[in-house]
Amino acid sequence: MKEIKAMIRPEMFENVYQELRSAGYCCLTVYHGEGIGRHGDPDNLNATLEFPFLHSKIVKIEIVAADEQQDEVVNIIRQAACTNNKGDGIIYSSEIDAAMSIRTGETGEVVL
Amino acid sequence: MKEIKAMIRPEMFENVYQELRSAGYCCLTVYHGEGIGRHGDPDNLNATLEFPFLHSKIVKIEIVAADEQQDEVVNIIRQAACTNNKGDGIIYSSEIDAAMSIRTGETGEVVL
Amino acid sequence: MKEIKAMIRPEMFENVYQELRSAGYCCLTVYHGEGIGRHGDPDNLNATLEFPFLHSKIVKIEIVAADEQQDEVVNIIRQAACTNNKGDGIIYSSEIDAAMSIRTGETGEVVL
Repeated sequence: MKEIKAMIRPEMFENVYQELRSAGYCCLTVYHGEGIGRHGDPDNLNATLEFPFLHSKIVKIEIVAADEQQDEVVNIIRQAACTNNKGDGIIYSSEIDAAMSIRTGETGEVVL
Repeated sequence: MKEIKAMIRPEMFENVYQELRSAGYCCLTVYHGEGIGRHGDPDNLNATLEFPFLHSKIVKIEIVAADEQQDEVVNIIRQAACTNNKGDGIIYSSEIDAAMSIRTGETGEVVL
Repeated sequence: MKEIKAMIRPEMFENVYQELRSAGYCCLTVYHGEGIGRHGDPDNLNATLEFPFLHSKIVKIEIVAADEQQDEVVNIIRQAACTNNKGDGIIYSSEIDAAMSIRTGETGEVVL
């Protein structure tokens, strides 16, 4: 199994989720963060009192998929999150050893 | 070493942490996020202006453990986070190559 | 490629970022979280209504680097985040299989 993390523009998240859901990927988690450099949009930067340099808000999606679904998930996210402007974000993938449903105790791809 | 990530109901976090601590696992980080699909509770969904579709709030725990502690940590979290209702969440594990204490510079399992 | 995660004191983040940038690492994402045990500062703990036990606020940095950059990135973060007090935090590294730029579709280290 693979964990796919995508750092995207917040305003593209709804589109990304609709496209993932249309393709049968129902289940993911979402986090708010801030991106700097190529992880953020250079034309939409803010300095805050908290982090007094330039950054932009991002949404991080974390989704786990079977190995053979990795390419499809990455491509769906890329196409749905792309505006062709700098700051569209980045997608990473890494290996997951194990997954378990808390309710059922089931393990493996069945819980994805 | 393994990183164990658990996406759980926010209201179960205190119980999960008390059980982990009782078993000797002191150290972890916690993040707020939102879960969709099996990562969230279908009976407790909200639509926000920000993310205008159905989701539920989740807490993500990240904890790193030695390989031989992985099963124990996963089982403690599962038992302490389980309500037997949909939306109890999911636990993932992945491999960690290296860990370092920022204060001491020590590396490896001693810093966990 | 490696994903390096650092859980640090929020007030050290600006210093960490300036040092990373000086060394040519432009691009990262940042998240707010809470640390418990050695992941937080024992002299600066709070109990909230939400999480009614002792914790401290942390900032999590996520940065992806080429394998040969891993040691440098870890050492920069460690030196810049260290105050020599408990609660300075922890740095983890794990393997990343793939990285893609959402805008260009490029993959691999070129997108870091």
